[in-house]
Amino acid sequence: MQFSGRSILGFHDGQESGEVFHAISPSTGEPLPGEFTSAGPRDVDTAARLAAKAFATYSHVPAKIRAEFLRAVAGRIESIAETLIERAMQETALPRPRLQGEVGRTCNQLRLFAQVIEEGSWVGARIDRADPARQPAPKPDIRSMLHPIGPVVVFGASNFPLAFSVAGGDTASALAAGNPVIVKAHPAHPGTSALVGEAVREASRECHIPEGVFSLLFDKGIEVGTALVNHPLVKAVGFTGSRAAGQALMRACASRPEPIPFFGEMSSTNPVFVLPGAMRERAEQIAAGLHGSFTLGAGQFCTKPGIVLVPETPQTAAFVAKLSDLVRGSAAFTMLTPGIRKSYCSAVVERKSVGTLRLLAEAQPSRDVPPLHALAALFETDAQSFLHNPSLADEVFGPATLLVRYSTREQMMEIARNFEGHLTATLHATDEDLRGAADLSSILVDKVGRLLLNGFPTGVEVCHAMVHGGPYPATSDGRSTSVGSQAIFRFARLVCYQGFPSEALPDELKDANPLGIWRMVDGNFTRDVI
Amino acid sequence: MQFSGRSILGFHDGQESGEVFHAISPSTGEPLPGEFTSAGPRDVDTAARLAAKAFATYSHVPAKIRAEFLRAVAGRIESIAETLIERAMQETALPRPRLQGEVGRTCNQLRLFAQVIEEGSWVGARIDRADPARQPAPKPDIRSMLHPIGPVVVFGASNFPLAFSVAGGDTASALAAGNPVIVKAHPAHPGTSALVGEAVREASRECHIPEGVFSLLFDKGIEVGTALVNHPLVKAVGFTGSRAAGQALMRACASRPEPIPFFGEMSSTNPVFVLPGAMRERAEQIAAGLHGSFTLGAGQFCTKPGIVLVPETPQTAAFVAKLSDLVRGSAAFTMLTPGIRKSYCSAVVERKSVGTLRLLAEAQPSRDVPPLHALAALFETDAQSFLHNPSLADEVFGPATLLVRYSTREQMMEIARNFEGHLTATLHATDEDLRGAADLSSILVDKVGRLLLNGFPTGVEVCHAMVHGGPYPATSDGRSTSVGSQAIFRFARLVCYQGFPSEALPDELKDANPLGIWRMVDGNFTRDVI
Repeated sequence: MQFSGRSILGFHDGQESGEVFHAISPSTGEPLPGEFTSAGPRDVDTAARLAAKAFATYSHVPAKIRAEFLRAVAGRIESIAETLIERAMQETALPRPRLQGEVGRTCNQLRLFAQVIEEGSWVGARIDRADPARQPAPKPDIRSMLHPIGPVVVFGASNFPLAFSVAGGDTASALAAGNPVIVKAHPAHPGTSALVGEAVREASRECHIPEGVFSLLFDKGIEVGTALVNHPLVKAVGFTGSRAAGQALMRACASRPEPIPFFGEMSSTNPVFVLPGAMRERAEQIAAGLHGSFTLGAGQFCTKPGIVLVPETPQTAAFVAKLSDLVRGSAAFTMLTPGIRKSYCSAVVERKSVGTLRLLAEAQPSRDVPPLHALAALFETDAQSFLHNPSLADEVFGPATLLVRYSTREQMMEIARNFEGHLTATLHATDEDLRGAADLSSILVDKVGRLLLNGFPTGVEVCHAMVHGGPYPATSDGRSTSVGSQAIFRFARLVCYQGFPSEALPDELKDANPLGIWRMVDGNFTRDVI
Repeated sequence: MQFSGRSILGFHDGQESGEVFHAISPSTGEPLPGEFTSAGPRDVDTAARLAAKAFATYSHVPAKIRAEFLRAVAGRIESIAETLIERAMQETALPRPRLQGEVGRTCNQLRLFAQVIEEGSWVGARIDRADPARQPAPKPDIRSMLHPIGPVVVFGASNFPLAFSVAGGDTASALAAGNPVIVKAHPAHPGTSALVGEAVREASRECHIPEGVFSLLFDKGIEVGTALVNHPLVKAVGFTGSRAAGQALMRACASRPEPIPFFGEMSSTNPVFVLPGAMRERAEQIAAGLHGSFTLGAGQFCTKPGIVLVPETPQTAAFVAKLSDLVRGSAAFTMLTPGIRKSYCSAVVERKSVGTLRLLAEAQPSRDVPPLHALAALFETDAQSFLHNPSLADEVFGPATLLVRYSTREQMMEIARNFEGHLTATLHATDEDLRGAADLSSILVDKVGRLLLNGFPTGVEVCHAMVHGGPYPATSDGRSTSVGSQAIFRFARLVCYQGFPSEALPDELKDANPLGIWRMVDGNFTRDVI
């Protein structure tokens, strides 16, 4: 496996000689093969200029070609899947099946967006026809649709080396909409990033996509990311990561001379509400599902359930006992990065010191744990203590969760009302529980992007209806989603044309509807020619 | 005409005794009858709490009832139209036909949104059905739709005392989506605001809309507006006004502990490109249309054409002569407020002092001009000078425009490339001009929300396809529109439901599709039952 270790600037390599760094194996703590060179301000500027220049062309490239490009990227990723998985395993210590799944998910995402733009109706074309005879003034012909927004910067995420990184959902949706993308690679998996970056570059060449539609920048530190979001030619940013980093970038985007939209997915504790009937019916089953969910990927998922509301029922003791047993029996996990491990261990130590929290169970370290190991932990508190300590609702990134025991329905409702924005909330409920929970659902729907019933929030389905978003601080813009086909709407803007003859309009708006898309004509949805 | 002069807090009146103020007649400079009391921090807090409480109910009120409410507001406005127009004429000095038109437009807007929510498809319902047999993991049932965002603050605009004020487009779209609205009345037309506010309050009572879905706050200064956008229970803001005020509010929204979306429509110079063929064919016709457009409403429209790119042709002299004649013959205008008049007069004086600008024509004051009078003015410069002085592209709010003479196509293109975001751009072009202007259109489409051919940008049609938006600094969020039915999308957010039985879902997502709306089911648009 060979890496140039240089940033990808369109069809060329980065020229600057910034700090050199290596990927670190989370399993051994040792550097992995391959040297990577941090980009510098000139590389950032080159990438942005190439992107802006490419935008003028790429924004008019027919959807059919953009779809071919996305499929070519998927095809090239699949063709190097084995190499990619090997390297990603070394860089992240994530297990092979998980990374195999992530390759599949990444390619499915690319193909989903290819399909969405090829079908074409996503642009939301609307046509209001003229009425020259209207009194007191003639009605003009007005037609609107979504257009791409301009160069988009995407930050690779540490916890999804493929599906939320170089050719992940942000990149796929931005490219699909017709925008160039500049990716800032996550320094924890530069080799994986380089391999995927090369696949995208080759696919660009193969499909005659203009130079600059894709660039990939390496940086050990935060300078390149900061320079990118402040570059005047950049028009939007997609980010998945920590709350602190997300908030800093959000402020940077809002403070630019020209503020730009920032789509950051930042943190979430994903409360789970176990209702009394469900606890009575299937305490142990819920305990097992919950353990699987909060320890999946070492708890390093943004949808990890970190708060579980537990009712007082005769079966609650069995639920707690089962969950405690499972936690004690968990093997040690290897965390993605030293920073994540450190934050997790500090959070666990801190929680152990909180008087109103009780450590119910913790996994035991085995003899030869990897340097970046972490242990699953299960804490417990009561509703009143939880309500008095809002920081207990903050995300702990890693394999820990907190049971909050409630003894009255009103306590549970009060906790629900006090939540900030989260990505998800989950109800475990019987049919009877559910009939009495309309008020709870109604509170939660204003707090989250996804409400689940009798499931677990990890495992985010990539589909048309998925909403992976939620009110601040879960995301920076609670109106959007970063997963699923609706993610494309983040990187597009409305434009209308008034008084243009059909032949001068984009195909989506022509009378003959040559693309055969769904349109709103004079207020009615139709695929008809007009 | 009697006003309590107090803010409207749900079904009650404001209690605080802030600074008292009067509306000032722009025609006489004298105070008009009616005392208005500025709200204070307690009134702001009351309005926000009432709104948050009302949201819990109103967000679940069926669309049919919300539509009835919007129609009741329109009906009540029509029933007091004469009183309203009289008062608005006194407060704004706008002519009767304009205000009659604005009453019509305001009511049409309310009814358009009523129709949109009654039809119901605007929520963009999507259903991805489960596949329990899918390998390697079962596919869950996921269904998404738009939900209202929460209490919305709307700032009344000085230049549209009805259509962009208390029950204007921002209010109508926010209420339609299911959000409570708190309006900050513009202090230049408090009486008009009070009358409309009372109409909304009465319509709320009539339709059994919960208290707090609508409040209206008066303030002579900026304290109430500032407190509103900083109130933690407020979830979004709609604003139409000056760039300075818009930018300040935009910063305030972004700097809150919980940042919220801000939809500000701030300033635009609306460039007009006259292409050579069009100038040759109809120089005088364009001159006449342009004069009508840039002096309409005393040039106090956000879509006023403030820059006109003029080619060198044999007919250009006739164009300039005609336009100059029309400007010299314009009667004096009465401006809306002392502040607007002062800014306009300063801008004209300043432009007269710029060496590279030439005053081509100015209207002559008649004997007895009103105190807030302003005179139409026509300036001219050349392409090079324009390119060297970017401030010439800034909005001058009032009846002035600037001709920019270009002698080469490349100059015109360079000017187009250098524009910031505007609401509109207009081409005057023959068929032949247009065939050669694809590159110009392609630049402009990235700079504006609406591109017009052979028309004039003033007169914004309220319809499904209208886009009254545009990249920063024209608006704070170039992905949105503040006019037309797509304005509703600003005040809604995506939510999805996973694994819920049909009967526990909102009607929009139930299998039986009881509302008969268009939905995307497994990727296909349909109104079918599933």
